[in-house]
Amino acid sequence: MRPLLARLRSAVGDDAVLADEDVTAAYRRDMMPLAPAGKPAAVVLPADAGQVCRVVRTCADAGVPIVVRGAGSGLSGAANAVDGCVVLVTTRMDRIVEIDPDNRLAVVEPGVVNLDLRTAVERHGLFYPPDPSSYDWCTIGGNLATNAGGLCCVKYGVTTDSVLGLDVVLATGELLRTGRRTVKGVAGYDLTRLFVGSEGTLGVITRATLALRPLPQAPMTLVATFTTTRQAGDAVGRVVRAGVVPSLMEIMDRTCVEAVERHLRTDLGGGAALLVCQSDAGGEAALRELAAVAKACEAAGAELVHSTDDPAEGRDLLTARRSVLPALEAYGSWLTDDVCVPRDRIADLIVGCEGIADDTGLRIAVLGHAGDGNMHPTIVYDPATQEAAARLAFDRILDLGLELGGTITGEHGVGKIKQDWLARELGPVGLRVHRDIKHALDPTGLFNPTSMLPA
Amino acid sequence: MRPLLARLRSAVGDDAVLADEDVTAAYRRDMMPLAPAGKPAAVVLPADAGQVCRVVRTCADAGVPIVVRGAGSGLSGAANAVDGCVVLVTTRMDRIVEIDPDNRLAVVEPGVVNLDLRTAVERHGLFYPPDPSSYDWCTIGGNLATNAGGLCCVKYGVTTDSVLGLDVVLATGELLRTGRRTVKGVAGYDLTRLFVGSEGTLGVITRATLALRPLPQAPMTLVATFTTTRQAGDAVGRVVRAGVVPSLMEIMDRTCVEAVERHLRTDLGGGAALLVCQSDAGGEAALRELAAVAKACEAAGAELVHSTDDPAEGRDLLTARRSVLPALEAYGSWLTDDVCVPRDRIADLIVGCEGIADDTGLRIAVLGHAGDGNMHPTIVYDPATQEAAARLAFDRILDLGLELGGTITGEHGVGKIKQDWLARELGPVGLRVHRDIKHALDPTGLFNPTSMLPA
Repeated sequence: MRPLLARLRSAVGDDAVLADEDVTAAYRRDMMPLAPAGKPAAVVLPADAGQVCRVVRTCADAGVPIVVRGAGSGLSGAANAVDGCVVLVTTRMDRIVEIDPDNRLAVVEPGVVNLDLRTAVERHGLFYPPDPSSYDWCTIGGNLATNAGGLCCVKYGVTTDSVLGLDVVLATGELLRTGRRTVKGVAGYDLTRLFVGSEGTLGVITRATLALRPLPQAPMTLVATFTTTRQAGDAVGRVVRAGVVPSLMEIMDRTCVEAVERHLRTDLGGGAALLVCQSDAGGEAALRELAAVAKACEAAGAELVHSTDDPAEGRDLLTARRSVLPALEAYGSWLTDDVCVPRDRIADLIVGCEGIADDTGLRIAVLGHAGDGNMHPTIVYDPATQEAAARLAFDRILDLGLELGGTITGEHGVGKIKQDWLARELGPVGLRVHRDIKHALDPTGLFNPTSMLPA
Repeated sequence: MRPLLARLRSAVGDDAVLADEDVTAAYRRDMMPLAPAGKPAAVVLPADAGQVCRVVRTCADAGVPIVVRGAGSGLSGAANAVDGCVVLVTTRMDRIVEIDPDNRLAVVEPGVVNLDLRTAVERHGLFYPPDPSSYDWCTIGGNLATNAGGLCCVKYGVTTDSVLGLDVVLATGELLRTGRRTVKGVAGYDLTRLFVGSEGTLGVITRATLALRPLPQAPMTLVATFTTTRQAGDAVGRVVRAGVVPSLMEIMDRTCVEAVERHLRTDLGGGAALLVCQSDAGGEAALRELAAVAKACEAAGAELVHSTDDPAEGRDLLTARRSVLPALEAYGSWLTDDVCVPRDRIADLIVGCEGIADDTGLRIAVLGHAGDGNMHPTIVYDPATQEAAARLAFDRILDLGLELGGTITGEHGVGKIKQDWLARELGPVGLRVHRDIKHALDPTGLFNPTSMLPA
């Protein structure tokens, strides 16, 4: 058998195979600092599905595992290399194949950057909702593999809610087509949603048919501050019970507020918690929604409630939320966790994180998507001296999330850092079914073998 | 080994096992007249998940297949008995276990009738969207097994979009818990949505956690009539391009309109097609939406456009749509097909069905969910003399649906009538993956062995 590199070069062309360790090092890991990352034997950048098929067949023949990655913006290590693997990078497959306004859909390759798709469909008056924080550089392929969320999930759902069909290269090197181009369809099992969120463990997504929505109205924005965490949690509960579905509802705890006040040299009114809320319902409907939110915040004891229908002022108000992670960098490195709890347990999660911060001696800033309970407690630490403490805090947050009736990951995924936690959340029967499905689709463990499922 | 009936009786109690052929006959088939139906060895009506586990273990030991059924309102024969099988009826498991307004969710057993759940959550100001036409007698378990749709899918999606988690009894007799109680969650594969729509071929759903929405506003209603089918199709396209998402948008062709005019002794303005459209956005937003729909209909050349904000008048207008099937009974028996086509091909589908009606000499009335392209061409025939012609028309409609870029089933499922069509839609790779997943979860073919997948 010819050496692996020669076979990969004939599969995708000489310039699409990288093997120099100095070069491949850039493709070893995503943005999760705690996850292990091996050294790849090679990095390949195929240009189309045919080349992906050839790479998969080559690796299958050689018994070399494949780790698929897009931009590498992931936060679970799912895209991290395994020693001796081939890293298959999708960034060259970046064509928007089709935008169909009559059926509100787009067909794209996996390497398309989320923002590029958003911009392209906006020209047709259309909207691709999933908006992870990294939307200006993450790729649709990665969004699909992790079932990425974002800020607008509370109203528009997550990535899987916008997918109609996929092309996937299987472990056999065959191309599977799932789903359809129609709005509805129940022909067979929902394979599309089985692949979405499977973190590169079942196949390589080479194309996606995505459902689009009409472009919403410019948002109206509301900000509310609270002197206690319980009040903010109570406000969220009142919004839910009032039957309002905002297009965005974010929460920041005291640590976030203080960091941002320092970073932006601005006054956010201090306080224990800040809520930012938007409605994109337009006109009188948006006024009605934000009035209901304001009433809920006031009834919960908000210190200050401020609304605006000026999009520019709204963007400024949202800047505080978007500045939390850069603001935290003033204190050290950060590590963001990802749990989702029932919406009526958000305050318990924040209070619990204060306890974990006290116990571990680390600063923990809790920000998150209050509208859906998906919280991102973010641990500030010194990687040189506090990695063990950070890992302890990270795990204790997961423990707390499960204790509150939540899940160990709302949108970042399991990857190479939460496999044991997945086993705990699923239980033995659930874990066995996961293994059975993995085995049915990838019997030799070709795809991302150390990710998601525990060894 | 003790005889099957004795073992079943000890599993679920004497009164929950039916074996008299005169009695079990009532459980042999659903509402699809053309699908084959065998004679069951027994019908069992377990009262809880523990009893379901025992029934599954008993049947697995005895090598007796299980067909699960709820109310039997299905339209694909998926719930039809197989010779010698045990029919497992879920109707005794009909408890609404929990309604949680703070997290907008409900936990229910599979035998709960759709309407009973709707009514119960409405008392909390909440809304369970999936509304199949049989909502006043179909069960949630059947809705889950078929991933049922309904009239409001255009805005609120289908059953799978309202499911957070499931309890499922597997072929091993073990209980699997999938999903979660939180809004978001990506811990592991999306097993929940693999079971939804699997038509009883992978396990027995014994409990579901369902996502609820705030109760929408009372709807405003619009009716438009058109002198040609193309005009109606053009109107739908203009509504889509105008960025309006109505809460209901139904279409009836000339055959439907004539049947209903005769049945209700009313004047619907004749014409080639009628659109009924609703907006539940409330107030000015609903006015804005229906004004945009009216403009689209007028631009497409509508003969008459009429809107009302009176809920009672709106219900009357919708009565025409809801009366199509009873109205067709004046002409003979009916058989309803189910294809979903891209929204810009609806007029092509209606025109194509006129051709199929001419060729087969049968009356075919096309009604359907114009907002999502899910059409139900309904064939009127005499079962004594025209069954072969009806089957031919049924198949030619599926052929046409695929030709127009659609799917062979939008919401009724494959069941025991479209297995060969499923093979055609999936292709060999897709079919093999389906078989691999079926084998991974049900290696001996215990659950509904002749449904969905071709022999």
